[in-house]
Amino acid sequence: MTHLLIIGGSDAGISAALRAKELDATVDVTIVVADSYPNFSICGIPFYLSGEVPDWRNLAHRTSEEITQTGINLLLNHKALSIDAEQKKVKVVNAENQEKWLTYDKLIIGTGAVPVQPTIDGLNLPGVFLLHSMADSFAVYQHLTTEQPQSAVIIGDGYIGLEMADALNHRRMSVTVVGRSPSVMRTVDASIGNLIAAKLGSRRVEVASSVEVNAIQQVGQQLVVSGTNNFHKNTDMVIVAVGVRPLTDLAESAGLKTGLRGAIQVNRKMETNVPNIYAAGDCVETLHRLINEYIYLPLGTTAHKQGRIAGENAVGGDRQFAGSLGTQVVKIFDMAVSRTGLRDSEAQNAGFKPLTVEFETWDHKVYYPGAKKLHILVTGDSQTGRLLGAQIAGHYQGEVAKRIDIFASAIFHNMKVEEISELDLSYTPPLSSPWDPVQMAAQAWVKHQSNQFAITNSQFAIKISGSGRAN
Amino acid sequence: MTHLLIIGGSDAGISAALRAKELDATVDVTIVVADSYPNFSICGIPFYLSGEVPDWRNLAHRTSEEITQTGINLLLNHKALSIDAEQKKVKVVNAENQEKWLTYDKLIIGTGAVPVQPTIDGLNLPGVFLLHSMADSFAVYQHLTTEQPQSAVIIGDGYIGLEMADALNHRRMSVTVVGRSPSVMRTVDASIGNLIAAKLGSRRVEVASSVEVNAIQQVGQQLVVSGTNNFHKNTDMVIVAVGVRPLTDLAESAGLKTGLRGAIQVNRKMETNVPNIYAAGDCVETLHRLINEYIYLPLGTTAHKQGRIAGENAVGGDRQFAGSLGTQVVKIFDMAVSRTGLRDSEAQNAGFKPLTVEFETWDHKVYYPGAKKLHILVTGDSQTGRLLGAQIAGHYQGEVAKRIDIFASAIFHNMKVEEISELDLSYTPPLSSPWDPVQMAAQAWVKHQSNQFAITNSQFAIKISGSGRAN
Repeated sequence: MTHLLIIGGSDAGISAALRAKELDATVDVTIVVADSYPNFSICGIPFYLSGEVPDWRNLAHRTSEEITQTGINLLLNHKALSIDAEQKKVKVVNAENQEKWLTYDKLIIGTGAVPVQPTIDGLNLPGVFLLHSMADSFAVYQHLTTEQPQSAVIIGDGYIGLEMADALNHRRMSVTVVGRSPSVMRTVDASIGNLIAAKLGSRRVEVASSVEVNAIQQVGQQLVVSGTNNFHKNTDMVIVAVGVRPLTDLAESAGLKTGLRGAIQVNRKMETNVPNIYAAGDCVETLHRLINEYIYLPLGTTAHKQGRIAGENAVGGDRQFAGSLGTQVVKIFDMAVSRTGLRDSEAQNAGFKPLTVEFETWDHKVYYPGAKKLHILVTGDSQTGRLLGAQIAGHYQGEVAKRIDIFASAIFHNMKVEEISELDLSYTPPLSSPWDPVQMAAQAWVKHQSNQFAITNSQFAIKISGSGRAN
Repeated sequence: MTHLLIIGGSDAGISAALRAKELDATVDVTIVVADSYPNFSICGIPFYLSGEVPDWRNLAHRTSEEITQTGINLLLNHKALSIDAEQKKVKVVNAENQEKWLTYDKLIIGTGAVPVQPTIDGLNLPGVFLLHSMADSFAVYQHLTTEQPQSAVIIGDGYIGLEMADALNHRRMSVTVVGRSPSVMRTVDASIGNLIAAKLGSRRVEVASSVEVNAIQQVGQQLVVSGTNNFHKNTDMVIVAVGVRPLTDLAESAGLKTGLRGAIQVNRKMETNVPNIYAAGDCVETLHRLINEYIYLPLGTTAHKQGRIAGENAVGGDRQFAGSLGTQVVKIFDMAVSRTGLRDSEAQNAGFKPLTVEFETWDHKVYYPGAKKLHILVTGDSQTGRLLGAQIAGHYQGEVAKRIDIFASAIFHNMKVEEISELDLSYTPPLSSPWDPVQMAAQAWVKHQSNQFAITNSQFAIKISGSGRAN
């Protein structure tokens, strides 16, 4: 009997276990889980803290019982301490500090990521929280319900910071979001960042951009957050959400090669440099499909894919990871913000000659009630015409999320921008136009590509607004 | 100066004209329009008749002024009578019955389609309407507003019939939909047809299936609609919507080859068999991309694409039509019903060995409020694993329309069902799951493909319900 040992009970680890068991019911699968919350949707934490998900148990993708019913063994509240790759065994310790060795034929590491701790004085003060694990979220929930804070400063304007702004606003708290970049959410272009900022403002969330927070101090019953650009803000609580870093101490101790930001290096089969050890999820470097290079890009979708592949290969499969395009979407109040592929600046860095065209139109024929404005950026290579990336922002009911997926599918297949008009997409007046907005935006890009020699300086950000039609 | 003459002022004709003018501003473009409503969104007629679009003028994609401002000449209320392909001229007649000849260098025919007139006695009775043109819709509107009918029978349960059921229900009329097939909307499978029927029932729209209507009679102030299966229904008005046929008398008179249902035969450049004459839209046979055969499949999206290509090629371009997949969506009350590619029965007819798997899940993580159930059918070739088609039904806010487009994009690129799991699709708990529902459905298909030898009789309709999760 093959013994498959998996370290990590979140997206990558559980996906790997389920896939292995699905393909080979005889394999013995054990997952070492550091806490007692395997297979939780940590992406759902903001909605638990907002009150929209009343019971944290509902955040489980599956219950422990559902997992063990498939024949998978869960070793909850066990921390992996070291890996002996020669002897193919892993030392684990339980909550009572009892150690033991587990042997394996194949090992999958899915230890995930941990929040980045910025160098800010006062991070350990009461009322200051980092947010990543279920335990973190219980601490925040406890604080919210017992201390009843009226205000919060959120350090970090990435998607978790913005979801938390929405969540705490939902609790009727006064919220301030502080970010280092000149515009909100630096993973999208400034024009979309400005739309997000306007949305936050309309819900009375304060936004402070270009601010580097350097200290949090206790002053009486309150905290004072201070930063560059003369930023000072009194608040009842602080949430720090400035990104994550891969958790790979264990992997490094076992001799696994690491790279960018310390993430484990893997090949497309999710194999590490050490025989019989695979790794997947937020702890690994991820292949970017478009540039064909490894980057650090932790996303739940990617962790599921990579885990599934590691699980398949660990039981004798021969599956390769197709690569990520960094496709993502976040909902902030009633606005969805999405991206896939490369932005203009990223495309330049990757050696392309990008042209980016901004386009605004309606999600469906404007004569039918309820049309929502979509703001679309298309980035393509001005020389080859290849589609490189897209960003869409607009009301979430404008099918923003699945429209970015049309672009993502197009990039997956190396389409040219011009070829997007060839896609046979669905239409009815209440839901689209005869040319879908993604096709109108692509046509606007093509028009500007053919005029590009008339464009003088930067090729970026030619804005075409409002016609909402294409021929 | 090149003279481009276009017959038909709807989707194909206008798209052709705009594209030609965009590529070559010097070309002289004239469009012969049979009525005074060029570039109207006839797909929007049901929403005008429902009252949701209060002013019919808003159904115009563009006004006549916007079109002529681009330099395109509109010859409104002119009917093309004959084509002299030798002399390259077209005889037209205006509303005052004055004839004249128009010369051309290139001619594009976009005469569209007309409603099929079923063989039913009483079709000419007052209160009985066929619905296709703006003039038709004015007649219906007039009847609705002056006669104030309280009930309607709609003959035809295709998408126009169902949209009209929704529209007249919106006017608080008692509506009965009568269809020939055993389940509603025979362009989708019965399991989805049954969902539509249930939705109609929940809104008190009566559905009569497997009924062939053969007579409409005037009895007092009312009409009586009679058909097979002992169908008799008293009603205040009748709408007949049993499909369309290509309008190609003119083309045939000019010696253009026609094929299926009399539609004009074209190649992928939208050229007809007669030099310098192109055709596009609902009057032509359309290349189906997947089976690589010509079929009759009139859709507004296709008409736009074909018109654009005809316009480009007419001014010296060399563009080929990529083919249609029959992607379509219709909104019926709060339900969206969509399809792309081939259904199981169609795939069998095309020589594939289809396997179709039904799958139900939620549009997004069910812990987040407002999750909508999606009903997904995936059809793939059981031997090669190739994706052949998909159907999705569910609440329209479950991004049904753009989810079918993910399948459509996958078919466009000849993907295998299994490869859909490789697509990097967007996720956030309020809008999807780490595996998008389209990927979960694809995984369910793959699981059943590998088990297919265990499936005894028909390979169709293995239903997997409710788990809403995938690994």
